[in-house]
Amino acid sequence: MDITLTQTTNRQWVGLIEEYLQNDDPIINVHRDDKRKFDAIFVGGGAGGRFGSGYLRAMGGRQLIVDRWPFLGGSCPHQACVPHHLFSEAARELDLMRWFSGKLWFPDATNLRASILQVVQLFKSGRSSAHAFMNWQSKEQLDLEYILNAPATVIDNHTVEVAGERFQTDNLVLGTGAATVLPAIPGIELRGVYDYATFIENLDFEPQRCVVIGGSKTGIEYGSFFQAAGCPTTIVARKPLMRTSSLHHVDEDLRTYVIDGMRKRGIQVLEGCEPVAIQDDDHGNVKAVVIRDMQAGSKQTLRCDFVFVATGERPRSEHYREVLGVAVGEKGEILVDKHMRTSVPNVYAIGDLIGPPMEMFKARKGGVTAARNIMGEEYELDWTDYPDFLHSTYEISWVGLSEEEARQRYDNVVIIQMPPKGVPLADVPLPCAEGTMLYAMVYPELSGFLKAVVDGDSRRVLGFHHVGFGAKDAFQYLDHLMRQPGGITIDEMGNMNELFLNPEHFIQLCRLRAGSLNLRDL
Amino acid sequence: MDITLTQTTNRQWVGLIEEYLQNDDPIINVHRDDKRKFDAIFVGGGAGGRFGSGYLRAMGGRQLIVDRWPFLGGSCPHQACVPHHLFSEAARELDLMRWFSGKLWFPDATNLRASILQVVQLFKSGRSSAHAFMNWQSKEQLDLEYILNAPATVIDNHTVEVAGERFQTDNLVLGTGAATVLPAIPGIELRGVYDYATFIENLDFEPQRCVVIGGSKTGIEYGSFFQAAGCPTTIVARKPLMRTSSLHHVDEDLRTYVIDGMRKRGIQVLEGCEPVAIQDDDHGNVKAVVIRDMQAGSKQTLRCDFVFVATGERPRSEHYREVLGVAVGEKGEILVDKHMRTSVPNVYAIGDLIGPPMEMFKARKGGVTAARNIMGEEYELDWTDYPDFLHSTYEISWVGLSEEEARQRYDNVVIIQMPPKGVPLADVPLPCAEGTMLYAMVYPELSGFLKAVVDGDSRRVLGFHHVGFGAKDAFQYLDHLMRQPGGITIDEMGNMNELFLNPEHFIQLCRLRAGSLNLRDL
Repeated sequence: MDITLTQTTNRQWVGLIEEYLQNDDPIINVHRDDKRKFDAIFVGGGAGGRFGSGYLRAMGGRQLIVDRWPFLGGSCPHQACVPHHLFSEAARELDLMRWFSGKLWFPDATNLRASILQVVQLFKSGRSSAHAFMNWQSKEQLDLEYILNAPATVIDNHTVEVAGERFQTDNLVLGTGAATVLPAIPGIELRGVYDYATFIENLDFEPQRCVVIGGSKTGIEYGSFFQAAGCPTTIVARKPLMRTSSLHHVDEDLRTYVIDGMRKRGIQVLEGCEPVAIQDDDHGNVKAVVIRDMQAGSKQTLRCDFVFVATGERPRSEHYREVLGVAVGEKGEILVDKHMRTSVPNVYAIGDLIGPPMEMFKARKGGVTAARNIMGEEYELDWTDYPDFLHSTYEISWVGLSEEEARQRYDNVVIIQMPPKGVPLADVPLPCAEGTMLYAMVYPELSGFLKAVVDGDSRRVLGFHHVGFGAKDAFQYLDHLMRQPGGITIDEMGNMNELFLNPEHFIQLCRLRAGSLNLRDL
Repeated sequence: MDITLTQTTNRQWVGLIEEYLQNDDPIINVHRDDKRKFDAIFVGGGAGGRFGSGYLRAMGGRQLIVDRWPFLGGSCPHQACVPHHLFSEAARELDLMRWFSGKLWFPDATNLRASILQVVQLFKSGRSSAHAFMNWQSKEQLDLEYILNAPATVIDNHTVEVAGERFQTDNLVLGTGAATVLPAIPGIELRGVYDYATFIENLDFEPQRCVVIGGSKTGIEYGSFFQAAGCPTTIVARKPLMRTSSLHHVDEDLRTYVIDGMRKRGIQVLEGCEPVAIQDDDHGNVKAVVIRDMQAGSKQTLRCDFVFVATGERPRSEHYREVLGVAVGEKGEILVDKHMRTSVPNVYAIGDLIGPPMEMFKARKGGVTAARNIMGEEYELDWTDYPDFLHSTYEISWVGLSEEEARQRYDNVVIIQMPPKGVPLADVPLPCAEGTMLYAMVYPELSGFLKAVVDGDSRRVLGFHHVGFGAKDAFQYLDHLMRQPGGITIDEMGNMNELFLNPEHFIQLCRLRAGSLNLRDL
């Protein structure tokens, strides 16, 4: 279907997307009367391809996005970050209902069970409207050209074939993401074993007992949801949770608060263990996971009907290696420089295809970086440091150095935290704010944790760390402030205008110490 | 009781505070062996007095706080902002339960009724632990001197009498806040009429039908809670809600979203009306409120058993006018300059006592400003502009200019908003993030609203406006960024590292337009 000349509303797009998810017909939006060659074809219309295209178009260039799905935005709104956020929100709400069982207006939660299947179905019934918006916005507001529901075949670094047609371009921007690597163990193919994508697409029963394989962000996030829903969950991880290589700058006090909180909610956390086999119930369904303690060597059988694999993803680079010969790293990630240029002239790569961190800011800004360089602007992206977050039943956010990292690098580290060091969590209903007030009144130990790490000499804040709700958004701006020349000092923090009760109390806590020439812990 | 030499734990403080709330004995924490005169006595240990004291002490000065209550922190954690946050959190949770009645794991909410009385009691049973923390922190961490549970009598600008003893000081810092002005109408004294303070202290029945008098922040916030709890609520206001003089920079689209949302939840909003009388049931209880349409002149009787007065507060300045002769303004507010100096030498005033905005940042920073000037540092505070927020069942945050204000001052105003202008709310499940994902999937029109107002010429963002959850905290930093020389441009915003799904989508939306020399609406 060619929609180039049609004004399609958001509502119409919902119907179209749902229809085209069932067929293989391309959706074509190409300005045939524009005789210019494309400055770039973006292979993959996920976060990076869409934002890169938007930027390139805004700069006056011509672009084309090609995507195998009938919508732009990629896996995030279809199978990954958006459903995860829905699940994490559900986890938070269910957690509240459990702690407040029979209190106030909350019903007895003794037998509370949320249907995981139903929440997945809710997501699937609603996701098309987010897709619709991105298709609509990209065409009507950003003036982008695209061909959807059609896989791209790269012919060479100037040619892409899609829907039986060849398109010429000055540059290629590759952004087709990554896919889960399933561990090579017996039983991995059984019914009841899912990763984040197949969980959304294929779940067809109500899980009763879950084993999560992998202690990454995804493992913690989905595991917290399953447990909160009422499905007893075990997380099996080789390394301590939150100590995986994909997470940097994790403060130990923050980590302890989070993992203790997960255990408090009933999650079984087995660190230093690896899966050996998944057992079958003789009908092709999962019956148990056999794990091995990596130090002791002993084995253990965990009964379950549901296995969630969260062992990380591998870039989908095979096609490009074969056709273009792009250089890749050890885990298949396409190697790029700070311009997002690959080893092949006029070929750029972005997003999860270039390896970790597999985060939204890197995908989108990578697309923009490719676009700017293609359009002749010298522009570099550095993604080595960034603010980060994850969800348990809390929102957990951090940026900058952990206390341990700071102590290794600075002589005069000052810590500002809540609750203060040495004070029992249960004695302090702080930090509290949007979403922890109920906890603060009844279970002060559940009201969160925060820490600012300060260099007492320069008075710069080196790191911010927070467990609670409503603070994540701030960390984007804290990251920016910390990057400014001179960073952000405790004095500048103390001079800001807080919105009280602010979820994190960094501004006012900094102010309480800012009057002092010699900073002390708080 | 003299606790100066005792180490009192947080837990012990809880017991002490609850005991001393019932008696008139002073709690004394004064360094008798320190023979220096006080640099300042802070009359009132609320937000301003405590932060001012902390700063002055950190600068090496000597201070004394005197407060009539047995705890520091003032009305905020006892009767005002903290309980309001608890009520707003309850409102948010109850709202979710109503919309999702019988869906997913949510029980049928047809007859859902939360006991307002019980939530008030929950707060009262928990508030002492927040008080305890402030007493503990002020003594053990901040090294402050204070006398609590004892009203101060100001003798002159260097002398305060408290608990039968006279203390000399170089300076006085007055910070004893404000109290509700009850409208002078018949029946205002009836049982069932409360303001925010008496509501906490005296509520002793379960309200069945509520009339809120006043359309201020407080009126909206408490009214939203009462309605969400299941107590049908009418808000009676002279001016349109959110168009009161105490709120500045309210964007009309944001306002419409909020007020429509309140009406959608069943709140009756009667604007342009004023109360004329409160009627009695012949037993001294409220039976109804009679209101008058200020334009038509017609009257209407609203049956209710509960009246919540939110018509604003008046500074408690009488004592200081009489004793010190400080100059005050029309509404009794003590007049101060940007150093927080009153008309009387060596007397400073801070917080709600100097009039609106009666906000936390102004109280605390006012205290700090007084402290810095007392300690010899030339320091000015300007509180004319600031970020602001309120709660309905949403968190609503804004900073900078509204669209209307910007159009009056700039020729080339560009608007970035979600949902975009002209697109039906119900067709776009955005913005969505922490706390609106469930809504986004089922009721997209309830997933919030955001707008950035941009000067297309300088590319500076002039205003940010948000309805949803989890974004409030960010507005503290957005305010700071907007105040920096050159402000914050759409290009700088677009270069930040977002944490996706960020509650507000300002960073990525700015990025989608940042590539363009000529900015357009989005």
